[in-house]
Amino acid sequence: MTKRPTPTSVTVLGRGVRAAALTGVLAADNVVTVWGDESAVVETHSVRRAESMETAVERAALVVVCVDDYAAATRVLHRAEQYLRSRDVVNLTSGTSAQAKQLAGWVGERGARYLDGALMAHPEHVGKPETVLVYSGSADAFADHRPVLEQLGSTTYLGTDPGTAALYDVAMLSFAWATLLGYLHTAALLRSAEVRAVAVAPLLNHWLSTTVTSVITDYAHQIDEGKYPGDEEWLELDAPLMDHLVEAAEDRGISTELPRLIRSITRRGIEDGRGADSFASLIESIVSSRPAAS
Amino acid sequence: MTKRPTPTSVTVLGRGVRAAALTGVLAADNVVTVWGDESAVVETHSVRRAESMETAVERAALVVVCVDDYAAATRVLHRAEQYLRSRDVVNLTSGTSAQAKQLAGWVGERGARYLDGALMAHPEHVGKPETVLVYSGSADAFADHRPVLEQLGSTTYLGTDPGTAALYDVAMLSFAWATLLGYLHTAALLRSAEVRAVAVAPLLNHWLSTTVTSVITDYAHQIDEGKYPGDEEWLELDAPLMDHLVEAAEDRGISTELPRLIRSITRRGIEDGRGADSFASLIESIVSSRPAAS
Repeated sequence: MTKRPTPTSVTVLGRGVRAAALTGVLAADNVVTVWGDESAVVETHSVRRAESMETAVERAALVVVCVDDYAAATRVLHRAEQYLRSRDVVNLTSGTSAQAKQLAGWVGERGARYLDGALMAHPEHVGKPETVLVYSGSADAFADHRPVLEQLGSTTYLGTDPGTAALYDVAMLSFAWATLLGYLHTAALLRSAEVRAVAVAPLLNHWLSTTVTSVITDYAHQIDEGKYPGDEEWLELDAPLMDHLVEAAEDRGISTELPRLIRSITRRGIEDGRGADSFASLIESIVSSRPAAS
Repeated sequence: MTKRPTPTSVTVLGRGVRAAALTGVLAADNVVTVWGDESAVVETHSVRRAESMETAVERAALVVVCVDDYAAATRVLHRAEQYLRSRDVVNLTSGTSAQAKQLAGWVGERGARYLDGALMAHPEHVGKPETVLVYSGSADAFADHRPVLEQLGSTTYLGTDPGTAALYDVAMLSFAWATLLGYLHTAALLRSAEVRAVAVAPLLNHWLSTTVTSVITDYAHQIDEGKYPGDEEWLELDAPLMDHLVEAAEDRGISTELPRLIRSITRRGIEDGRGADSFASLIESIVSSRPAAS
């Protein structure tokens, strides 16, 4: 986003506030043709409403789809079927990996390149550098349109499998809820001692932004290398501390489900022979119901 | 830590690298007397080794204890019993709430004030502003020694119950492991699509430091107010997305334990009548095995 690209023609097939936000951001540097949502888009010198689907899709090589769900995305693309040849479809509609793969296959058969994107932000954050978008699918389409896509936010390409962006979306949700459930458990423990949540939230947030992020960076390297050195902490060191977590929850009369889960996965890691390895090695116990992964 | 206090006499009864780190930091602005660990401490103009426990404890009104565990802390304080009157004991030894309360009671009976502290950092970070220490116990002792305690790091007082600092320690550990387990689950999902962990760690960390911390701040206010408005998200909106989490884990053949736990606590929240409330309302389901809390 450091250098402004020359204006590109982009078509947005969209509905709702997300599509309107995408249109608004893209219109700053491109000529945008919109089709699909008559109510949300205001025409300007750089935003034109197409009279027909045919005009919309013919006008631009880059077609951005952002509708309510994959059923709607499939419907709109089926309607555009005969105009898709040599177009690049970037689909920012939320869905599952399987839905993305299926639609990618269908689009590819029509002679178009398909890129699936996941946008994890409220509409008002589209276009800001802190807004994260990830893409997967056609590497060539990503390379060709990267300057335009980077106008929408921080941009990462995750590989050629069109299902990966949607998987990332699910994985982030999972991470969010695990973290927030951990937070609620912590807040419940502290509330039992009459500690106000707002008094400790700054400490927890500071610690999350510094210590935890640096541990995650470290774990990421361990995971990619498949080596989990227990130099600073290791499962057999952790396990007795996890007994304290369960006991603390019992003492305070709150749910022990979360500390018990943490402990049981850790014990499984120790049983699997990784007692001297770091907590990151538990990824192997999490994937162990699979046939041996790389 | 903005203003340097006048030098104070501090006694450190300690063992190991943590005690040595505390001594080193305190010696920058105070006259420190050490007793207990002959090997780790180097005498300087501001660090004096005491010839006896009696000299050590008599020399300073503020006595900092940092040893391996509460058994050791109890041993060292029992040995100092006759010198404790009118002293302030700040105990930075790791332990449980129950241990802290018991030791606080014993120390109080000897005419000393007791403050329990939790230091959540590796020794090399002691004294840095990003290092968090929390205290609970005697409010007067905290107020009197706050300038010295602030030399050790960012300082927060959690209330008069001497067990609260230790509870905070456990609560932070619980939060750390929940977050890191969530991370490992996410990394396992992405590894199944051959996404490298180091490729996404910066995205996850960025998102943790911005979006998740702002959600936690919001939730903290909701928790203190006991009101969980479901303006942006609510349990009945979340639940079907959690079905996707479980399905995604099943599809990829990885453990479904964590997404199932998230879903089951959410379903319990809905059964408890909070389907239109935010995810933060699940704190009430987490504490619900207690007799109705405030």
